[in-house]
Amino acid sequence: MTLISEIHEQPARLTELLSSQRKKVESIAQAIRKSELNFVFLAARGTSDNAGRYANYLWGAQNHLPLALATPSLFTYYRQPPTIKNALIVGISQSGKSPDIVSVLEEGKKQGNLTLAITNEANSPLAKSADFVLDIQAGDEKAVAATKTYTAQLMAIAMLSTALSNDETRWNELAKVSGWAKQALAQEQKIASAAQRYRYMDQCVVLGRGYNYATAFEWALKMKELSYIGSEPYSSADFKHGPVAIVESGFPVFAVSPQGKVFDSMQGMLKHLCNDLRAELVVISNSLAALELAEVAIPIPENVPEWLSPIISIIPAQLFAYYLTVVKGYDTEQPRTIKKITETR
Amino acid sequence: MTLISEIHEQPARLTELLSSQRKKVESIAQAIRKSELNFVFLAARGTSDNAGRYANYLWGAQNHLPLALATPSLFTYYRQPPTIKNALIVGISQSGKSPDIVSVLEEGKKQGNLTLAITNEANSPLAKSADFVLDIQAGDEKAVAATKTYTAQLMAIAMLSTALSNDETRWNELAKVSGWAKQALAQEQKIASAAQRYRYMDQCVVLGRGYNYATAFEWALKMKELSYIGSEPYSSADFKHGPVAIVESGFPVFAVSPQGKVFDSMQGMLKHLCNDLRAELVVISNSLAALELAEVAIPIPENVPEWLSPIISIIPAQLFAYYLTVVKGYDTEQPRTIKKITETR
Repeated sequence: MTLISEIHEQPARLTELLSSQRKKVESIAQAIRKSELNFVFLAARGTSDNAGRYANYLWGAQNHLPLALATPSLFTYYRQPPTIKNALIVGISQSGKSPDIVSVLEEGKKQGNLTLAITNEANSPLAKSADFVLDIQAGDEKAVAATKTYTAQLMAIAMLSTALSNDETRWNELAKVSGWAKQALAQEQKIASAAQRYRYMDQCVVLGRGYNYATAFEWALKMKELSYIGSEPYSSADFKHGPVAIVESGFPVFAVSPQGKVFDSMQGMLKHLCNDLRAELVVISNSLAALELAEVAIPIPENVPEWLSPIISIIPAQLFAYYLTVVKGYDTEQPRTIKKITETR
Repeated sequence: MTLISEIHEQPARLTELLSSQRKKVESIAQAIRKSELNFVFLAARGTSDNAGRYANYLWGAQNHLPLALATPSLFTYYRQPPTIKNALIVGISQSGKSPDIVSVLEEGKKQGNLTLAITNEANSPLAKSADFVLDIQAGDEKAVAATKTYTAQLMAIAMLSTALSNDETRWNELAKVSGWAKQALAQEQKIASAAQRYRYMDQCVVLGRGYNYATAFEWALKMKELSYIGSEPYSSADFKHGPVAIVESGFPVFAVSPQGKVFDSMQGMLKHLCNDLRAELVVISNSLAALELAEVAIPIPENVPEWLSPIISIIPAQLFAYYLTVVKGYDTEQPRTIKKITETR
């Protein structure tokens, strides 16, 4: 039962990461501040790409950095990489081994940009190709489905944002993450029992916006790779531009909607889904108004600030995907077809 | 039957767009070339966002421009837009009316960047907020599902790329697009009959890579909004990083895989899906090797160059979505829930 124990390891790993890497992160931030930076160019795949989505919003909102997600095939198959000037090139990868992600960093460096690897393997090819390495210190992750490396990547991204803005209030909030994560884990029994209801669900959508756009993607990915459910993630705005048509009475919609600036936008969509379209909602939130709309309501701690809510809200989502997999009778440790380390070009 | 007639209008609209807008596109390209450009910052939703995905690859490969997809909520709900310097801000919208897309252009202009609207409504709020307007000249689109405005957006993007690189060979290839589009439409009867087989399909995945990553997204969106199918698009590389686990024997996989630089990557995945996982394939391609793997093989003209293949390969995909909707007995003109003009913030 490696997966469930890795999920439970998260509060301790987050504490350790914060205390052991703060100095390193601050020195990286100092080097970044000294450079003439116009934007961030980020390469990642799978779970790490979802961490990249968090960086897109957090570094945008808190550090005013525009972020471009790399299209690795331009670097590999097409061999026509874009001309990148005044950028920070970031590669995120648990294993640090996917050749396409390494290609992006190598090309970015060759063109004279600063490069940063965020990885769990400080001796990996990705780490070796980078000017700076942010070691996420998650410890060996044995389950194929990534959990503790994902929250550690988010934490590393949040630490770098905080170091860049040099904001002591935000460092204090980061110190509370581990405690909130522990509280989120306390929902385990409730989630295990709620998962029963979805034994025969074979598709759903997952909604999240702003900072939690990343959480929607990661929850959907966990349900896909563990429970083999066709679960597609959307922002509530993109969902409105067409895909909402698939919702009929009883269609399952999962939503991550904590209190914060995009709450009203999400709540408008959830009310429409619940009241007009009669969708069935599973909601992770710290707002009573959102939880009240749900068939299955999964609360997270009241006082989690929006910018850190993705690190907390993914934890009950991981538990949900785990117990749904158990309920469906699938292998939680080794999903069919996929491997722990995926190498793509 | 507006939708099917709008699908059939495409060859004529593409010819008209090329001849009537070339001068305008060349003057826009000249202004862009004069500016100090580090990257493109692009805002769009729904079908227009899929056109943006084509721009991401085409402008990257042919014009060496990195492209960042905007996260509009940073401009609207969060009111913390990134600091954008030396960028071309592009908004793509059929109606030019979605307030979030207009917000991104207004803020980008305020920060001193060049702005470009690609729209079918030259008097829309989006057009009015931009320095340059590329009118896609698709004529009034009445069906809710966008078809002719999508291919016109792709054509406009391809024309701008060609004008930026000032390449007469590519202008000559653009002149052939309309003829290839006409050939693609000739598959109509075959597609209408093949759609029968998918009467009871309720989910699938759609794969495409590189230039045709956009086509995978747009085909999936048409099947969602018209036929209410849970159809999720992926690049073959992202699919390998986890989601491939959902494929079991007989699972329907749609693929867009014309000849070109990413063909080998796609073909490796399609062979794995067909031979190892026993998935059922529906393939759009001009490669015999790809078509041979398919249960339903949809050929496109042999000599379409890869960079223009998205404009051609989406046409049989539109026909497939249309006839699948007919087969399922749904309304092709007015899908449930959604409207022609979607305004999001």
